[in-house]
Parts: sequence; C-alpha cells; structure tokens
Amino acid sequence: MRQLRADGSLRHLITLEDLPRPLIERLLERSQSLVRPLGERPPVSRALAGCTVANLFTEPSTRTRVSFELAAKRLGADVVNLEVQLSSRVKGESMLDTVYTLQSLHVDALVIRDAETGVPATVAAHVAPHVSILSAGEAHVAHPTQGLLDALTVRQHKSRFENLSIAIVGDIRHSRVARSAWHVFQALGVPDLRIVAPPALMPGPDEFRGCARHTSLETGLAEVDVVMMLRIQKERMTEVDLPDAHRYYASYGLTPERLALARPDAIVMHPQPMNRGIEIASDVADGPHSVIRDQVRNGVAVRMAVLSEVLAWRSAA
Amino acid sequence: MRQLRADGSLRHLITLEDLPRPLIERLLERSQSLVRPLGERPPVSRALAGCTVANLFTEPSTRTRVSFELAAKRLGADVVNLEVQLSSRVKGESMLDTVYTLQSLHVDALVIRDAETGVPATVAAHVAPHVSILSAGEAHVAHPTQGLLDALTVRQHKSRFENLSIAIVGDIRHSRVARSAWHVFQALGVPDLRIVAPPALMPGPDEFRGCARHTSLETGLAEVDVVMMLRIQKERMTEVDLPDAHRYYASYGLTPERLALARPDAIVMHPQPMNRGIEIASDVADGPHSVIRDQVRNGVAVRMAVLSEVLAWRSAA
Amino acid sequence: MRQLRADGSLRHLITLEDLPRPLIERLLERSQSLVRPLGERPPVSRALAGCTVANLFTEPSTRTRVSFELAAKRLGADVVNLEVQLSSRVKGESMLDTVYTLQSLHVDALVIRDAETGVPATVAAHVAPHVSILSAGEAHVAHPTQGLLDALTVRQHKSRFENLSIAIVGDIRHSRVARSAWHVFQALGVPDLRIVAPPALMPGPDEFRGCARHTSLETGLAEVDVVMMLRIQKERMTEVDLPDAHRYYASYGLTPERLALARPDAIVMHPQPMNRGIEIASDVADGPHSVIRDQVRNGVAVRMAVLSEVLAWRSAA
Repeated sequence: MRQLRADGSLRHLITLEDLPRPLIERLLERSQSLVRPLGERPPVSRALAGCTVANLFTEPSTRTRVSFELAAKRLGADVVNLEVQLSSRVKGESMLDTVYTLQSLHVDALVIRDAETGVPATVAAHVAPHVSILSAGEAHVAHPTQGLLDALTVRQHKSRFENLSIAIVGDIRHSRVARSAWHVFQALGVPDLRIVAPPALMPGPDEFRGCARHTSLETGLAEVDVVMMLRIQKERMTEVDLPDAHRYYASYGLTPERLALARPDAIVMHPQPMNRGIEIASDVADGPHSVIRDQVRNGVAVRMAVLSEVLAWRSAA
Repeated sequence: MRQLRADGSLRHLITLEDLPRPLIERLLERSQSLVRPLGERPPVSRALAGCTVANLFTEPSTRTRVSFELAAKRLGADVVNLEVQLSSRVKGESMLDTVYTLQSLHVDALVIRDAETGVPATVAAHVAPHVSILSAGEAHVAHPTQGLLDALTVRQHKSRFENLSIAIVGDIRHSRVARSAWHVFQALGVPDLRIVAPPALMPGPDEFRGCARHTSLETGLAEVDVVMMLRIQKERMTEVDLPDAHRYYASYGLTPERLALARPDAIVMHPQPMNRGIEIASDVADGPHSVIRDQVRNGVAVRMAVLSEVLAWRSAA
Repeated sequence: MRQLRADGSLRHLITLEDLPRPLIERLLERSQSLVRPLGERPPVSRALAGCTVANLFTEPSTRTRVSFELAAKRLGADVVNLEVQLSSRVKGESMLDTVYTLQSLHVDALVIRDAETGVPATVAAHVAPHVSILSAGEAHVAHPTQGLLDALTVRQHKSRFENLSIAIVGDIRHSRVARSAWHVFQALGVPDLRIVAPPALMPGPDEFRGCARHTSLETGLAEVDVVMMLRIQKERMTEVDLPDAHRYYASYGLTPERLALARPDAIVMHPQPMNRGIEIASDVADGPHSVIRDQVRNGVAVRMAVLSEVLAWRSAA
C-alpha cells in the first residue's frame, strides 16, 4: 500500500514507517505553525470548506476522535461521526461496502480507528483515487498522528534530534504508540533510542531494530533527554502473569527519584489516559518536566497539518 | 395528512403515494442538478444557513442518517442528531411533547426514522405550520427519499419511464423500499412493474395493484430494463419458514446467469446493506450492470433537493 | 469557587446563588433580545466563530444538550459532544485529566451535566483562566440555565417580580430545578415564594429559607401568579414510601379545578419531561394558562446569552 501520490505528496497516513524524512519534517513544520499557546485562539480557516471528513471509530476514544473532529472543523470541513464495526467484517466485502458508501457520499477523508490489524490498509487499497485514509490507531501496529505529535513535542523542547537519547517505557509489546514513536524518531535520526519493559512486555527480537533494550528502568533512564511513558492496561497484567499494579509501580513506575536519573532538562511524555500511581507518579505527571498537556495541544495541530496535506489538491481545486 | 401547502409546494415528505407527477419530476430535476461525479466536489451553498434540521433516528441507520446529515450541512443548515424512542410512546402524549420541544427549539425540519407505522403522520398532524416532517423510513410502509433516489438512478440510465420494465425482487411483503418504488414508478408511468418473491414474502392481494406477480425469478427477470434487489433479513427466514440462506440464494439470488435473462443493458440496483451470496452474487453487485454506488451518491442529491424544497420559504424569508 | 471575573463579568455559571441581581437582570435582558416567536427564524450570528464549546453530558438529556448545542451553533461556535463519566472519577485525578485534555484542545467552554454534587465546581477550580464552566444540571443542587429561563418566562408574562406569588410544587427535596428557581426568584425580589410538597419530599429546614411551606396543594396555590410544577420520579415514590401515581395525582396533581384556586391570569410552568396524569393533567399542560413550550424556546435564548456573556472577551479579542 502506497501512502504517497506520484508527485510525492501524502495521500494516506497509515504508518510512519518508511515515510521520507523531508515529508515528516514538512508536516512537523506545518504543524508547528498551527500551534498556539493555551488561552489564545487556535488558528481557524475555511481552507477545507466543502470537504467532508468521516470519523469511523470502532473503539471508544473520545480524546482522539474529538481531536480529529476539531482539527477538521477548524479548517472549515464538514465532519460526520460514525460508530461502525469494521474489523469483524474484514473478511467479507461488507466492510468495503460501508467504505464505498461513504465514498459515494463524497467523503474526502476517512479517519479510522480499529482494533484489528490491517483494516486501514485494506480500505486504502480499495477506495477511489480522491479519497484519503488516515489511521487514528490500528491494533498494536501504528498510531501515526500520535507519532507525529510526539515528535513535534520533542522538537519544541530539544534543538536537534541528532543528539538525543529517548527512552520509551512500559508495555512496548502491545503498543502502537511505541511503534509509531520508533518509526518517527528513527527517521529523524535520533541516535540513542531505548525501549524499557519487563521481559513479558518486551517485543519480539525482530522488532524495534536499532533500539537498545532495558529491563531495568534505572539503566534505561540514565542520562536520557526524553522519557516517553506508556499506558499499562491492568487487564494485561493478569494476562501475561505480571505482578499487580502496586508491584509494577515499584519496578517500572516513573517516580521523581527515578526521573532524577535522566538529564536535568529531560522532558516527560505520556499518550494518555494515565494510570497515576501505576506507571507514573502524580508528582511527575504534573511536575515541571511534564509536557503531557502540550502533547494534546500539539495533537490538534498535527491533525490539521495532516488533513491540510492530504486534501491540499481539494482546496486548490 | 396533507403533504402539500395550499400553494402546491411540498411541506412534508412522508409517502410518495398520490404525490403529483409534476412535483416528483421537479424534485428529480433539482436532484439531478445536484449530482456530481465521484471525485468532484459536491455542490455546497449557504441556502439554508440559519435553518435547523433534527435527525430523529430510533433505528440504527448510519447510512441514511449520514446522508441526510451531509445533505443538510452542504446547504449550510445546522444539524442535530437525536436518538429518541418515539414509537413506544405513540399512544401517550409524550412523543408529541418531544416533538413540541424540538419545534420550540426552532427546528425547521424533523427527519424521522421509526419502526412503527404512523409515527411521521402523527407528528406531521401536530407540528406548527412552519415545521416540516421528512420520513427517513417508516416501518414497512414507506421510505420516500429512497423511492426518489431509485427513480433518479433509473432516470440517469434510461431515457423514458414510459417504456420500461422494472422488476423488484425479494421480501416485498415487509419492504418499505418496495412500496415507495411502486409509488414512484407508477406515478412516473412505468408500464411494466413486476414484483418477484417467494409466496411467503409476497404482499397481500390488495397491495401493489398494477404490478405483475412472479414467484419465479426467471420469468420475473425476462427482458426487464431494471432489476431492483431487496435485502432479505435472515431473521425473517425462520419467521416465515423460508429455506435457509443457501437455498434462498439457489432460488432467488441474482446471479450473472439470471441477470442474463434481463435486457443486455439492464441495470441492477440494491438499497443496501447487501447480503452478498444470499440475495445477490458479488459478481453482479460489483459488475458492469450495477449502479448500486450511484444510488448512494444520488441519495445525498435527493435529500438536498427535498430539504431545499420544503424549506424554500425559509431561505426566501 | 468564584463565578465572576475581577471586572465583574461572568466567567462560570454553576449556581445562581449569590449572583448579583444586576448581572441576572442583564442576562435576562440579553436573553429576551434573542427570543423570537415560533415560526420566525432564531437570531444567528458569527459572534463566537472560532470558539469551541464541549458538551459533557453524563446523564442522558437530549433536550438540554440539544438546547446548548443549538445555542452555541447559532453563535457560530464549533460544538463537540462527549459522553464521559466524570462523577465516578471525582476522587482521582482522572476526571481532571479529561478536563485538561479538553482545555488543551482549545475548548473555551465546558457544558457539564453530572449526577454527582460538586463536579462543576471542582472542574472550575482547576481549569485555566480562559476556560468557562457552565453547569447543565448538577445532582439535586443547581440547574442555573433552567432557573434563568424560568425567570425569563415569568418576566414575559408578569410586569414586576416585586409583587408576585409563586408556588413551586412537587419533589422539592430532590430538585435542582426548584433550588435554582428559589435562588433566582429571591434575587429578583419575589416576595411570596412557596414550596408545596408531601412531607416526604419537603427539603430540610435549613434549605429554602424565606419560602412558605405547604403540604396542601390547595392552600399552596391560593391566589398565586405562577405555578411551577416539577417532575416526580416514579422510582422516588417507592423509595420514600409515597402513595402510588394514582394517589399522588389525587393529592398533588395539577387539575383544572385546583388551578382555579390561583389567580385568573396565573401561568403554569414545567421543566419537562412531564408525567401527564401524575403531576399534571393534560388539560392543564396544553391549556391556556400553560407556558411550558415557551420555556423551551426561552431556554435556547438564555443559553445563547450565557455563552455570549462568558465568551465575550473571546469575540472581542
């Protein structure tokens, strides 16, 4: 599945893997121009007036859905929200019938969140040439706009990607956030990328190539510039025979003491929602190193930039 | 219940039965002017800016709800979506209290889908003179915008209604789609209208007057210009003691072989969602005779035309 | 929790208690200017274009949610609807994380309905200075926009608040509508405010100070100018060992005979949804004294006025 058009512009955004670095940098540049401090008005335009964006979220995800919805509305697009189960229908043609229906309703971009691997790519392979597919989270595989907003957040605090140490901490094995972060930070030339997890949550050996692996949080955090914490699913703990939440926190929770092992100007990130007191201490989440709320704000900017990019030919038309 | 205003303009759209042919033709004309090829932008205006359309869907129907929602938005109207159970409350006044509330909120048009017979007409009989009621599907009785989009689709492929043979195939007895098609094609002067169904799904003898009845799909399809397939509900099969899906397909499924009995330039329609492999073969659904996706596209145009028509006095005001 | 800014303008609206009378009067004045007769177009502007309003409704409340949604849209604001359970999370920080997320998405006003006491104030105490919190109903405590629309409705029919007799009838103990009515009518100088309820539904002695208490509907209604009926929850009846619906109606239902005890020009109000035949006779609900549908219409105007007031600094910016 190709994400780029013949002219090199972005058509779909399903994964950050193999996306050309100049394109990523252009998206980050454009996103940055759309960021406003809290309390100021977000940029609003009519650039996508007459365009239609459909949100197909099959998993409940208020935050990401609202972020995409506001991004589209602030560009003047019409937005419709649908709750459709696509994944259970992947094998039949009925998933595609739903998509063809939306396409025939002159929907220009489909934003898809689905718990099953491969749904966005399957849809992208079948839609008409004028329709763009944007993944808003695909199983454990990819969450590309999250990866971009994470990169944008780092970029706002650190001058150059080329000399950074970044640690991603938590349930790496099941995390689409970790995979998209890995893709984007590799593309941007981050030299020291570490994944930190208990053995049961460490990904297979063929994944996350180029990353250093740590099962100790202490060594994993040593002298890093960026700490990316992941959400741990409580259900997962029983599943993979992990210790309980209390003991998880004792070993892998980000406390002020542990954060002190990182560089003094380290930033702390989390994709939310947070389990405070399990993977992260409240003192850290709300502390001076935290840029967690910046990530949310950056998320709308990134989604505006991506929508503008994939629908640019529309607004020019 | 009168659907027309004293000046002959359309106020409500609840059924196509007895609608004057010139009005139907005007609606089709206007709809056609709003159709755009896939990939082009749909027409967008501010004609209904300041108007409010409320979607009251008590049955889940993503496709029809989104179609009405986009039609209203592309005319500049404000849209609110409600999930309200009206039918269980028909006997009490509480259904009407809900409607009076929406009326007092300055809602101009109520789009109602309900599984119980009579709800749109009851509501229409009580609302204030400036409020329009549009049925988006009433029990087995009527689905007027579907009827119009079906007529529009035929009109795009066949020059004159007056020399057409049209076969409607499937669960005629329980189908509002079939009833609205019957109404519109009769009004437009289609001389050869056939209904094709197993005996258990054939309507009572006092309905569908003027239609030829076929229990054999083969004779029903002979030399027709248009094949309208209906969705068969799997639940229905047990209910009316029908054979299973496999045997239904064997007798009533539209296969390429059976389609060959129709005219060489016959078109195939389906209101969706389709049960591929039960009432229709995938080869037919996706084949060169299929205009099923055109129907969806035409649906938005029809709903824009109907909203424009019933709210024309508003935009003039 | 302070609802006013340093300059005396309204920032949050969580309760009408202690709100300065001039501010209430200004809100009513502004609301009145936004009222249009049924059948005329509601006023529409772009005053809040670029602003974002989020509806967080944790109890289903179609009527109030739609009223706020239309108020915001008719001022040109973007609206997002969320279903989030806040109350169960009050004790943890996760409720606030949800709110911080919305704040970071550049939401300007959060409209909150929640069944638990204290949620709007807790949220208001934590949001950034540019975010406004509007309560759309807080437990049994307050429903300030309902109080304002009730006052506006009275104001439309009675020349001066200073010589009115108003009776609030029904489940006073559990009613946020009654409490906000009490606040607003006291502030506006209503001299004779009565609460009428069976003993089991009468509030504690430290509440509703200044109100005369009646357990007899007959004495409670004598010579009043305004009758405000409340909805009685059927569940409540068993809970507090009340007689059944039939016997409740016999003692506390507003019949035409009982209404005749009020002044000849008395108006009848109800916040809806009504239990016809339990707390109110249909003849009264639909009769010449009823202003119940006016209340709904006034509700949008009040919400437009409140949104304009709290976001005025935005539209000026």
